[in-house]
Amino acid sequence: MMKPLPLSRAFTLLEPGPVVLVTTRSATGINVMTISWTMVMDFTPRFALTTGPWNHSYAALKQSKECVIAIPAADQIDLVVGVGTCSGTETDKFAHFGLTPLDGQFVKAPLIKECQANIECKVVDIVSKHNIVVLEGLAAYVDARRPDKRTLHAVGDGTFIVDGERLNRKRMMRSKIPPGV
Amino acid sequence: MMKPLPLSRAFTLLEPGPVVLVTTRSATGINVMTISWTMVMDFTPRFALTTGPWNHSYAALKQSKECVIAIPAADQIDLVVGVGTCSGTETDKFAHFGLTPLDGQFVKAPLIKECQANIECKVVDIVSKHNIVVLEGLAAYVDARRPDKRTLHAVGDGTFIVDGERLNRKRMMRSKIPPGV
Repeated sequence: MMKPLPLSRAFTLLEPGPVVLVTTRSATGINVMTISWTMVMDFTPRFALTTGPWNHSYAALKQSKECVIAIPAADQIDLVVGVGTCSGTETDKFAHFGLTPLDGQFVKAPLIKECQANIECKVVDIVSKHNIVVLEGLAAYVDARRPDKRTLHAVGDGTFIVDGERLNRKRMMRSKIPPGV
Repeated sequence: MMKPLPLSRAFTLLEPGPVVLVTTRSATGINVMTISWTMVMDFTPRFALTTGPWNHSYAALKQSKECVIAIPAADQIDLVVGVGTCSGTETDKFAHFGLTPLDGQFVKAPLIKECQANIECKVVDIVSKHNIVVLEGLAAYVDARRPDKRTLHAVGDGTFIVDGERLNRKRMMRSKIPPGV
């Protein structure tokens, strides 16, 4: 079940660089894309992603100025690859991949029930020259009961790195950790 | 030893979202910063990173329009945290952390000998409104003899995720893998 995550912690979902699913809603319905080209820009939180007119979701992002970033886990690799290798122009991806759309609080784009975390976002700017979409996170949710929480990191050659061990340097990093994290 | 990596594969060094070291050279010497806010923008390769005037390296990036992105490994976590928690304004970080600067071919910013990979980059644009620096990769190198090749993914709360197992979906991803990868 999706439970709220303090917005001050939402950037920690994207900072490690996982491959994510991005959902949109347009006049033609809901859609989802796989994307690896994302970046944290601020703790507020603010994110960037690179996409453009070649991508079916781009028109919906531009029109609706909203999306949801959903974080899949390692056991969802075939979902990630499947969503990333077909187009919303010919496939109803939510139906095809058995995804359950959930209503958010702030945006019309759906959360994905099967993902371990979701972030509702509004588009605050599009830097067309570079195909960069700048997003602000409005609300974040995590499903703490999901057993596999390891995320996937796309390499770009058809392989994916799964999260391994976690190292703790909280004491050394104290001066750099923002409040509320 | 640093050996050339085909430039067509250089984006695969950053696509998984590792924490990186970015070196610069200015009138006051060489410097290095730890940065986690990066994004691949194109296979050519093109990268974005978010930084700004609050960062000592920003002036050097802006002036020299050059940098090197170096990829540290898991066994260098204390280097990554150390470089990230002191400033080049008061510390000669190469000397302090025992880093060996190596000459690149295209830029005056140094490669880091102790890192497993380095990418020489030129600044092609700065989107000041969003503190985004757009980089183009000019040459890439890897040290294949380095024993630990696992990268680090900053979470932002003082912990770091180390690369775990690697999953292969090359067959399913075939249509999405660019030439030369």
